[in-house]
Amino acid sequence: MNLFYVLLVLLVVSRAFGEIAERFSQPALVGELIAGITLGAVVAEYPGIFPDLVGLSNNDVYVSITDLGMFFLMLFAGVEMQPHKAFKHSTGALVVAIGGMIIPLGLGVALGWFFLPDSNLRTAQCLFIGTALAITAVPATVRILMDLKQLDTAVGQTIVSAAVFDDILSLLLLAWLTGLIAAGEPPGIVEFAILCGKIALFFGITGVVGLFLFPWGGRFMHHLKAQELEISALLVGAFAFAVLAEMLGLHFIVGAFVAGFYFGRKTIDAESYDQVRNAISAMTFGFLAPIFFASIGQNLSLSALAGAPMFVGILVVVAFFGKVFGAGGAARIFGFSMRDSAAIGVGMSPRGAVELVIAGIALKAGLFDVTATDSPVVNNLFSAVVIMAVVTTVVSPVILQRFFSRVRPSPD
Amino acid sequence: MNLFYVLLVLLVVSRAFGEIAERFSQPALVGELIAGITLGAVVAEYPGIFPDLVGLSNNDVYVSITDLGMFFLMLFAGVEMQPHKAFKHSTGALVVAIGGMIIPLGLGVALGWFFLPDSNLRTAQCLFIGTALAITAVPATVRILMDLKQLDTAVGQTIVSAAVFDDILSLLLLAWLTGLIAAGEPPGIVEFAILCGKIALFFGITGVVGLFLFPWGGRFMHHLKAQELEISALLVGAFAFAVLAEMLGLHFIVGAFVAGFYFGRKTIDAESYDQVRNAISAMTFGFLAPIFFASIGQNLSLSALAGAPMFVGILVVVAFFGKVFGAGGAARIFGFSMRDSAAIGVGMSPRGAVELVIAGIALKAGLFDVTATDSPVVNNLFSAVVIMAVVTTVVSPVILQRFFSRVRPSPD
Repeated sequence: MNLFYVLLVLLVVSRAFGEIAERFSQPALVGELIAGITLGAVVAEYPGIFPDLVGLSNNDVYVSITDLGMFFLMLFAGVEMQPHKAFKHSTGALVVAIGGMIIPLGLGVALGWFFLPDSNLRTAQCLFIGTALAITAVPATVRILMDLKQLDTAVGQTIVSAAVFDDILSLLLLAWLTGLIAAGEPPGIVEFAILCGKIALFFGITGVVGLFLFPWGGRFMHHLKAQELEISALLVGAFAFAVLAEMLGLHFIVGAFVAGFYFGRKTIDAESYDQVRNAISAMTFGFLAPIFFASIGQNLSLSALAGAPMFVGILVVVAFFGKVFGAGGAARIFGFSMRDSAAIGVGMSPRGAVELVIAGIALKAGLFDVTATDSPVVNNLFSAVVIMAVVTTVVSPVILQRFFSRVRPSPD
Repeated sequence: MNLFYVLLVLLVVSRAFGEIAERFSQPALVGELIAGITLGAVVAEYPGIFPDLVGLSNNDVYVSITDLGMFFLMLFAGVEMQPHKAFKHSTGALVVAIGGMIIPLGLGVALGWFFLPDSNLRTAQCLFIGTALAITAVPATVRILMDLKQLDTAVGQTIVSAAVFDDILSLLLLAWLTGLIAAGEPPGIVEFAILCGKIALFFGITGVVGLFLFPWGGRFMHHLKAQELEISALLVGAFAFAVLAEMLGLHFIVGAFVAGFYFGRKTIDAESYDQVRNAISAMTFGFLAPIFFASIGQNLSLSALAGAPMFVGILVVVAFFGKVFGAGGAARIFGFSMRDSAAIGVGMSPRGAVELVIAGIALKAGLFDVTATDSPVVNNLFSAVVIMAVVTTVVSPVILQRFFSRVRPSPD
C-alpha cells in the first residue's frame, strides 16, 4: 500500500465532506461516512485511475490504521466519561441496554424466520440477523454525541453506557453463535458460564488496575525523567487492556474505553491531564477518526439492493425502529422524558463500526456458505447487513441533531 | 500481526530502557536503540515464547507504523526549525554537508577497494559502502539534539540542515548507484540532469506552496467550522509533500520535514500553533518515535561480526571518524570553534534511520547477489552496514552528551 498517498486522499476527502456536512448543520461524522461511500463508488467505477485505492478494506496496513482510529476514539470516549457520573446513570443504562437488546433481537430473529429458506444454517442465520440488530456501534455513538456536544449530558452518558453494555451482551451472543455455526449445536451451559466468567474476570482485573494501579502510577511518574511520559503511560494501559479484552473474548474497543474511563483528572496533575486529553483529541479527530469513518462508508456495496430490495428495506426500517422502541421504550419506563427517551432510542441505533466486525466474524465462520440455495436473501445477507449498518449510522445523527438543536443542552 | 500486543511490548520496553538511559545521563534514544537490540536478541533466542514478535521487520503493518514514526519525527523537526535561522546557517550547513559527504564517501570507496574481491559488481559495491558512509540519519540526529536540548542552537541548526543536505546528496548518489546496478553502467549525464531537475522541482513546488499557500490556508481556516482542523491541515500538507518527494525520487522524510519547516507561528494563530505542536510532540515522543528507534535496534544481526570481524571493526571506525574529520573539519574551516566543530562532526555521524532504507534498496536492487564468490566480506556486507548504522547511532549521542554537558547551551 502506498501509505502516504492513501492517508492523504482519505484525510482530504473525509475532512472536506465533514466540513460540508457541518455547513448543512449536520454532524461531521455524516459527511465522513458519505465521503467513504462516494470514494468507494468512484474507485469501483474507475479502478484504473486510482489503483492504490482498490481493495483497501482487505489491506492489512489500512485495516490496522482504521483499527487504531477505533482504538483512539474509544480511548478518548473513555477519558471523557467520568466514573462517578457513569455509575450514577448505570441503572438507567442497564435498563436501556436490555430493552434496546431484546426487542431488536426478537425482531431480527422473526425477520429471518420469515425471509430465509429452510436449511441447516437457518437458526444460526436468524440469530445472526438478531445479533446484528441488537448491537449498538459505540464508536459511532460517541462521535455523534461529541459532534452534537451531548456526551457530557445525562442522556449522552446513558446512551454510551447502554451502548457499551449492549456490545458486551452482543459479544456473548456472538460467541454463542459462532459456537453454534462451528459445532452445529449451541454451546452448553458450562461453556456459556466460562464465557460469562471471562467477561467478569476482565472487568475485575481492569477495575483493580484502574482504581489502584493507575493513581499509584500517576504519583510514581513524578519521579521519572523521560518526556511525554503521561501519554505513553495511558497508551500502555490502553494497549494492555485491549490485549486483555481480546484474550478474554471481548473486542479490543472495550479495553481502550475502560482504560480511558479510569484515567481521570486525579490520576495525574490537572495540567498534564489536559495536555494528554488535547493530544489524543487532536490525533483522533484531526487524523484517525475521519479516516476510520470514511473506511466504514467504503464497505458499502449496493449489490444487495438489486438482489433483495424488499428485505434490505425492511431490515433498515426494523433496525432503526427496533432500537427506537426497544431502547427508547425502556428509557421512558425508567423515567426519562418523552423527548429524552426518543433521543436515547435514536442514539442507540447506529450500527456502523462494530457491525462490520461482527458480520466479518460470521462470514469467516461460514454462516453464508449455503451452496444448495438460490435464495437471494441468503446470498445478499452480508451486503444487506452492511447497508443497514451504514444507513443507520448516517440517519441517526441527522435525526438526533434535530432533537438537540431545539433544546438547550442540559449538562448533568 | 497482533497489533495491540506488539505496540504494547514495544512501547513498554522502549520507554523503560529510555528511562534507564536517562538515569545514566544518556539520551533516551540510546536506551530505545538498546531496547530494540535486546528485544531482537531475546526473540531470536526464544522465538517460541514470543511468536508474535518474530519477523516483525518484514511485516507490512509494523513497517508502516515505524514509517509513521519516522514521518512524525521529521515533521516535528521541521516544525521546530525556524526558517530565518535555518537560512542564516545555510552556508555553514552546506560547507559542513559537503565536507561530511566527500571524506566518508572517498574513505568508503577506498575501504571497499581494499576488502572486496574483483567482480562485475565491485564498483557498485564500493560506491554502496561510500554512500553508506556519506549519509547522516536526520531523524536520529534530530532526536539526539532534542534529547540534549540543542536543536535550537547554532550548532544544532547547522547539524540538522547539513544532515538534510547530505541526505539529498546521498539520494542522488543512490539513484545513480541503482542505475549502475540495474544497467551495468552508470546513468548518463542526461539522466543525472533529470534527477537534479526533479529535486529542484520538489523544492520549487514546496517552496511556493509553503511560502504562499500555507499562510493563505491558515487565514482561510478561520472561516471553517470543523474541529481539530489545524492538525489535519498540517498533516495533509505533510502527506502531500511526502507523496511529492517520493514521486520525484526523494525519500518521504524530506517531504515531512519541509512541510513542518514552512509551518510556523505565523501560519495560524499562536494558540493553535502551540496546540498542534504539543499534539505532534506527544504522538511522536510518547508513542511512535520510541517504537521507531527500537525497530532500528531490532534490525541488528551480529552474524557479520563472526564472518568478517576486521572489516566490521574498520567500517565502524571509518564511519565515525570519517564524519568527525569530514564534517567537523569543514565546520572548523568555516569558522566554528574547535569544540563546536567536534560536536558537529560527532553529531553528523549517526546513520541509524536512513541507512537501513538505503541498504534495503541496495539489497532489493541485487547488489549483494554475488554467487561466484566466497568472500566473507561480500556475504556479510549488508549485516556489516547495519551494525555500523546502529553502532554510530548509539555512540554519537553518548559522546555528544559529554560535549554539551560541560558547556551551557548557547541559544542562537
